[in-house]
Amino acid sequence: MAKRYEYLRFRLPTKQVSITPGVSDLLEKAEEEGIKTAWHRWLEQQPQCGFGLLGVCCRNCNMGPCRIDPFGYGPTRGTCGATADTIVARNLLRMIAAGAAAHSDHARDIVRVLRLLAEGRAPGYRITDSEKLRSVATSLGVPVEGRDDMEILKDVLPILEGEFGKPNEGPLKLLEALAPKKRVKVWEKLGVVPRAIDREICECMHRTHVGVDADPTSLLLHGVRTALSDGWSGSMMATLLSDILFGTPKPIKAVANLGVLKEESVNIVVHGHNPVLSMKVVEAAMSDEMLDYAKQFGARGVNVVGMCCTGNEILMRLGVPIAGNMLMQELAIITGAVEAMVVDYQCVMPAVVDVAGCYHLGSVLRRYLTL
Amino acid sequence: MAKRYEYLRFRLPTKQVSITPGVSDLLEKAEEEGIKTAWHRWLEQQPQCGFGLLGVCCRNCNMGPCRIDPFGYGPTRGTCGATADTIVARNLLRMIAAGAAAHSDHARDIVRVLRLLAEGRAPGYRITDSEKLRSVATSLGVPVEGRDDMEILKDVLPILEGEFGKPNEGPLKLLEALAPKKRVKVWEKLGVVPRAIDREICECMHRTHVGVDADPTSLLLHGVRTALSDGWSGSMMATLLSDILFGTPKPIKAVANLGVLKEESVNIVVHGHNPVLSMKVVEAAMSDEMLDYAKQFGARGVNVVGMCCTGNEILMRLGVPIAGNMLMQELAIITGAVEAMVVDYQCVMPAVVDVAGCYHLGSVLRRYLTL
Repeated sequence: MAKRYEYLRFRLPTKQVSITPGVSDLLEKAEEEGIKTAWHRWLEQQPQCGFGLLGVCCRNCNMGPCRIDPFGYGPTRGTCGATADTIVARNLLRMIAAGAAAHSDHARDIVRVLRLLAEGRAPGYRITDSEKLRSVATSLGVPVEGRDDMEILKDVLPILEGEFGKPNEGPLKLLEALAPKKRVKVWEKLGVVPRAIDREICECMHRTHVGVDADPTSLLLHGVRTALSDGWSGSMMATLLSDILFGTPKPIKAVANLGVLKEESVNIVVHGHNPVLSMKVVEAAMSDEMLDYAKQFGARGVNVVGMCCTGNEILMRLGVPIAGNMLMQELAIITGAVEAMVVDYQCVMPAVVDVAGCYHLGSVLRRYLTL
Repeated sequence: MAKRYEYLRFRLPTKQVSITPGVSDLLEKAEEEGIKTAWHRWLEQQPQCGFGLLGVCCRNCNMGPCRIDPFGYGPTRGTCGATADTIVARNLLRMIAAGAAAHSDHARDIVRVLRLLAEGRAPGYRITDSEKLRSVATSLGVPVEGRDDMEILKDVLPILEGEFGKPNEGPLKLLEALAPKKRVKVWEKLGVVPRAIDREICECMHRTHVGVDADPTSLLLHGVRTALSDGWSGSMMATLLSDILFGTPKPIKAVANLGVLKEESVNIVVHGHNPVLSMKVVEAAMSDEMLDYAKQFGARGVNVVGMCCTGNEILMRLGVPIAGNMLMQELAIITGAVEAMVVDYQCVMPAVVDVAGCYHLGSVLRRYLTL
């Protein structure tokens, strides 16, 4: 049934690699069918590079790659003179930049949906939690009394859009509105109050470039600034706006793990991070039209399950069961029970495309890729 | 005279490492005085990591570091399933992001000086090339007829500030104004017309993060988009605004290399990239006040020389002689003739601080560092 996508060089010495029930059985099935998983590929990477693991390898300019000998027998400086401290701090700063960029781009996409909504160009989306919109607006100094949601939204949007890039040196508006005042004073003293999300990320890349900032403390303080721009504006914005669009979650009871896949239903896994796609997939799948369509082919219904962070978005808002975390994405397909995996971004392993190509998802994939 | 900053493990097998006259003599002097240079540190790094040199090493997430075996015996995928093509494209995209960030932050700083100038808060700076300001304004659709420079500048600034970050999806204004129309059509077709400089850089970091964009073509196209945002807006802006502030260069004759240092003068090297500091250093050094001050100590005068790109800025505008390129920064100090090296950013090796500490520059450095 399953087609091999790559030669499986070895079997895992043990299948007991996770406490999650079912993982070892599915790894057994994967190996029988000649399918590699993240566990196989990780083992193939052993031993991983010790310089890379310690962060003492620098490839930021073309005089490198340079490596510092952690034992002190070899080089203590890169070609430019960077020490281990400088190199580690620069590598960490680029990691922070990537993380902040990912979370904040997530927010940017939701702001974009709200902008289209405000312009009447986002059919299918609506303001679900008016109360949260009003609370966010009030924090940002936007009047709410006697105004309807759309009027308020139109005033809130330019402020949020400005968080990504604005010309002045003033602090981020969401941070200013929501962070504890006492804490902000500490950040002011350290000079780490962020100005604009994209700008701090851009400055991370500039500072870590050849011959710019070589002081580990200064580098790490900019890391704090960038992380704050994400934490108090980017990620915070994504959360607040998701609540406004799709409702604020309340404690619920739900089921989890691969057992949520149903043998007699069409199983669709939504995977990634951003609710703007997954919420719509769930909505469409729950429609009578889709149910009837599935029944025509002998299925009992359409069963959407979540995976990774986008799974969490639909779990906490709609109680949609979650099939697993990031490491379960290939195993879900290996069950053979999944008809489609709909992904947005982040944590989507390139390997899922290959694994999907080995099962009946492949026919959909091939049709899509040749369109 | 010179103090060692680090144990010199070996002498270079040959001092003939550059066609620039004087380099081999100065390397000889460096070794006699126990000073390491970039050439020594580069040799200490040999053999450099082959995976890093090929770009087939990925450290973008914590399942790594992962390496692809270029000979095909070892792993062909990272833990997530990324192929060599994906990894190389991601690494290249982060390099483009860093380069674009550096050049464009350079522009941002000059815009900031012009903003302060427009607000009457930048004493010492003025508009030198009014004609260029008017030509840039006209390209951007800002009226110039019958208006004075400051009025025009105040209308131009918000447009330039918006290049770094703006909420809409429209193209960069400078690119739209200056790039060949036919070429822009090609970029539009490919979907690579940049929207905002910081945003494209931010998106580079997002796309290269774990499980986002794994398609080498898509990754590289975003690289093109980011590079265009720098080339037609960031770097272009830096050039245009430097001309407006300090004058547009004309062909001149000048002298170059370390021979520009003068035995009987106080030698100051300006090094880095941005003219906003170096131009002011030259101005101050050329003042009668400084000349008299230098003469009090028995010097004939103050001799400012350039190095690297900021050296080029003052070379092409003022004819200030240039002492050398990026690789000459340590050697200039090793001559023993330099009293101070004033740096801004980019290409400033961390090692210059250590090398300076071994010569009489060190006393200034130590005084500064203990302040």
